[in-house]
Amino acid sequence: MLNALVRAITVAAPLPSLGDNTGDLDRLKKALAPQLAGAMPVVPYQRLGKVAGRFRAAGFTGAAIVNELPGGPALVDFLPQVPPVLVGMALDLGTTHLEATLIDLNTGATLARADLENGQIRYGADILTRIHYAATNEGLTELHQAIIVSVNQLAEELAGIAGLAVDAIRALSVSGNTSMVHFFLAINPYHLCREPYIPMVNAPDPCLAGELNLAIHPAAPVWILPSVGSYFGGDLISGILASGLDQQQETCMLIDVGTNAEVVVGNREWLIACAGAAGPALEGGVARMGMRAGPGAIEHVQIDPLTGAIDYQTIGLGKPKGLCGSGLIDLVAELYLTRQIDIRGKFRPQAAGKRLRKGNEGWQFVVVPGEDAADGKPVVLEQVDLDALMRSKAAMYAILTTLTNQVGIAFTDLHRIYVAGAFGQHISPRQAIVLGMLPDLPLATFEPVGNSSLIGAQRILLEKQARERSLEMVKKITYLELNVNHEFMLRFSGSRFIPHTDQALFPSVPFFDGE
Amino acid sequence: MLNALVRAITVAAPLPSLGDNTGDLDRLKKALAPQLAGAMPVVPYQRLGKVAGRFRAAGFTGAAIVNELPGGPALVDFLPQVPPVLVGMALDLGTTHLEATLIDLNTGATLARADLENGQIRYGADILTRIHYAATNEGLTELHQAIIVSVNQLAEELAGIAGLAVDAIRALSVSGNTSMVHFFLAINPYHLCREPYIPMVNAPDPCLAGELNLAIHPAAPVWILPSVGSYFGGDLISGILASGLDQQQETCMLIDVGTNAEVVVGNREWLIACAGAAGPALEGGVARMGMRAGPGAIEHVQIDPLTGAIDYQTIGLGKPKGLCGSGLIDLVAELYLTRQIDIRGKFRPQAAGKRLRKGNEGWQFVVVPGEDAADGKPVVLEQVDLDALMRSKAAMYAILTTLTNQVGIAFTDLHRIYVAGAFGQHISPRQAIVLGMLPDLPLATFEPVGNSSLIGAQRILLEKQARERSLEMVKKITYLELNVNHEFMLRFSGSRFIPHTDQALFPSVPFFDGE
Repeated sequence: MLNALVRAITVAAPLPSLGDNTGDLDRLKKALAPQLAGAMPVVPYQRLGKVAGRFRAAGFTGAAIVNELPGGPALVDFLPQVPPVLVGMALDLGTTHLEATLIDLNTGATLARADLENGQIRYGADILTRIHYAATNEGLTELHQAIIVSVNQLAEELAGIAGLAVDAIRALSVSGNTSMVHFFLAINPYHLCREPYIPMVNAPDPCLAGELNLAIHPAAPVWILPSVGSYFGGDLISGILASGLDQQQETCMLIDVGTNAEVVVGNREWLIACAGAAGPALEGGVARMGMRAGPGAIEHVQIDPLTGAIDYQTIGLGKPKGLCGSGLIDLVAELYLTRQIDIRGKFRPQAAGKRLRKGNEGWQFVVVPGEDAADGKPVVLEQVDLDALMRSKAAMYAILTTLTNQVGIAFTDLHRIYVAGAFGQHISPRQAIVLGMLPDLPLATFEPVGNSSLIGAQRILLEKQARERSLEMVKKITYLELNVNHEFMLRFSGSRFIPHTDQALFPSVPFFDGE
Repeated sequence: MLNALVRAITVAAPLPSLGDNTGDLDRLKKALAPQLAGAMPVVPYQRLGKVAGRFRAAGFTGAAIVNELPGGPALVDFLPQVPPVLVGMALDLGTTHLEATLIDLNTGATLARADLENGQIRYGADILTRIHYAATNEGLTELHQAIIVSVNQLAEELAGIAGLAVDAIRALSVSGNTSMVHFFLAINPYHLCREPYIPMVNAPDPCLAGELNLAIHPAAPVWILPSVGSYFGGDLISGILASGLDQQQETCMLIDVGTNAEVVVGNREWLIACAGAAGPALEGGVARMGMRAGPGAIEHVQIDPLTGAIDYQTIGLGKPKGLCGSGLIDLVAELYLTRQIDIRGKFRPQAAGKRLRKGNEGWQFVVVPGEDAADGKPVVLEQVDLDALMRSKAAMYAILTTLTNQVGIAFTDLHRIYVAGAFGQHISPRQAIVLGMLPDLPLATFEPVGNSSLIGAQRILLEKQARERSLEMVKKITYLELNVNHEFMLRFSGSRFIPHTDQALFPSVPFFDGE
């Protein structure tokens, strides 16, 4: 047994008699206490009648369901037997997508995995639009209900895959950015996007699923990963948990790229973090052909420097539909290395050959012609998409340099750089270095950690130590606000070239000057 | 400041800034912690948005409202200023009547007092009828709603007297018998009256008033005095609190008489308790002329042994309407001393004179003729009423002897006997001794403690130590079940005479043998 967020504890209480006439619930608590290190569990009023009634109906013998909360254990249900499988749902509550797993709390095994588009998207693709919408009449309620509906859909799907009823899910851990957590809890996000960017709450106390009208078991604890600030959410705390950054002796870095780029530097002694808008380019939000890393997305691209022939790999190996973040980075790096774009990220028509053509909004580069694409439409890269990527990569590098400069270390002092998210899973660090997005370090420095938001949420379900670490971490992290940081703005300007205005920073990257 | 159940704590938190961007609620908790002995308060989900929003609206300065619960402090509200008066309601949740006070939590002063008939009476005057009704379709829900409506009415009345809004009441302590607590919490009372008489819960964890749809402030903690068993409720725990029985060096006794007689013997080392049905006679439930101790009730009676003239005192000094418990005891003791009834409690027509007359159901004794009574109807005592009183007094004495015998002490070992309730307030111990209801001890042994159920509830509102004591007490009390006790049944038979079959037990009472 791991120290799971919910436990089924076998209880065989002495039967009531005239000589032992304590109340049902008091009897159950007394029988439980030795198995809870002497802590007296609390029974929330909503569960009072059910727990006591089921304990009696089961003949005072069976399994107590106990939520292990930071304030102490809560006794929330009673079953006639220890359930054959006790499951929890780990949820990555993303702005555009939700991803979740169903975890066996006894073994830690993953029983099901599923994802779903965030149902809030109809109120706005980006968080800012939604925050503004929340300020309208019933806006917050609508956004809250939309996300609850999505989470319920996902829970139903997971339960279906695992062959369980949805209310067999007895715990939920949630890892999301601070705004999504506000929507999820139906609390006012108004100040999140207004200086000085203060959340209503960073570390909400756990509640019961029933209080949020979730479809999982109403007594399931909802444990939300704490955030550090408006732009530094529980998803990144998850990332630190998943990477173990907070337990390292040597200084390391964690990079999580989504719509925002979130970066943490530190070790087991200290942690400093910042976040900045990186633009949607890296998350597959490219104007026309971008897509999320999933089936049909081009994830890797090579261009033959002699013939200009393009070779690519598609996730799922089918015909391509578009470009995900890593495919885009590969493509642009290869375009630079084959000199089809210049150091400013502009197409060079004299070098690009016949794949470059005039579209309605300027140049577009045909990566895959229509006849080879999944739906007959060519996969193209337009100049506007390229411009967006240039801004994103500049922001990323500016964030990394600003942060390390604040701490007073060089990139070479970093023992390891963990790269989180779908971005980290698929990206080729070499190509990101060519673009000047990541620092020019040995490739072994970079370590992908997958969807660390989800991985961290899974650990919250399973490990008491992870829950404690997450709360400790929040107190330990120093947060650097970049939205108003002048150094960042200067460094951003210097980073809007490939690889950088200061080519000495990227000795391994060929520099094509002066055309 | 006493250690009240709810506190308003002044907070002046540092203002949020780019350099200090922690969440609103996290900021408030941090500012509060030093004033809570370092304990980190929990914010229940229902209060999350309100607390955070009001803290910000107040400019991060004002008064935090904190419920002091056994599991730790709960932060439930925030006000711009410390309220001029912070009030709680102490409630004696009786089977027939509710009585309540409004208490200033800062000074302990009583701001208002009111009582009300229990609205559940339309479902049955006695608890057993209601327990059976609860088992019908919507029975429990109806009974629950009826008591909530009554409590809300009483709260409105108290608030009105004090010139406050009802939701200014920010705490509620409840002292009631175990069945009333089950109805109040809407939990199944089915097993309370069935051997082995097990409550669903003795010590429920506090909940919020909003969860019970109470009209007082929704964030008010509802603190229910714990019970020991089905027939030994929180009202008696209140009595122990009020009398201080659990803190005495010398062994004392507490007697609380209502429909049930509840008795505790003990000291600061040990407590043993029992309860038994005493019948409604002592609570004013006499068939025809009985009434609750209140305006118009005859509380004391003297009969001139020479002339047979009756002198009486009425509560409120107006014309009499009926007899309350103490009046009844006085009357019957005087009837015995003037030999108008015999040792079996039967009228002696040869001695009773012209006040005794034949009614439809046997003899009736005219205490007050119609022309002197409040509503023109004579106040009479019928033989059936006398019989009921004889059973009640026998039950009482049998309980007291069974209990002391179990403990292995004599009545003379008792340092003091606290007599609780309206019964204790008005009773003449001397006359109760004459009847053989109370043991034949010096009158200074007996000390009335008033409505100790209400007094205990008031102390729960005000004193942390009282809250802790009440929970400790429940663990310490040994409960003796009389419903199936053979010794009790034997002693009950021996007690059905005035003063007793064994006249040596009552040396101070004249014994009139053999007529």
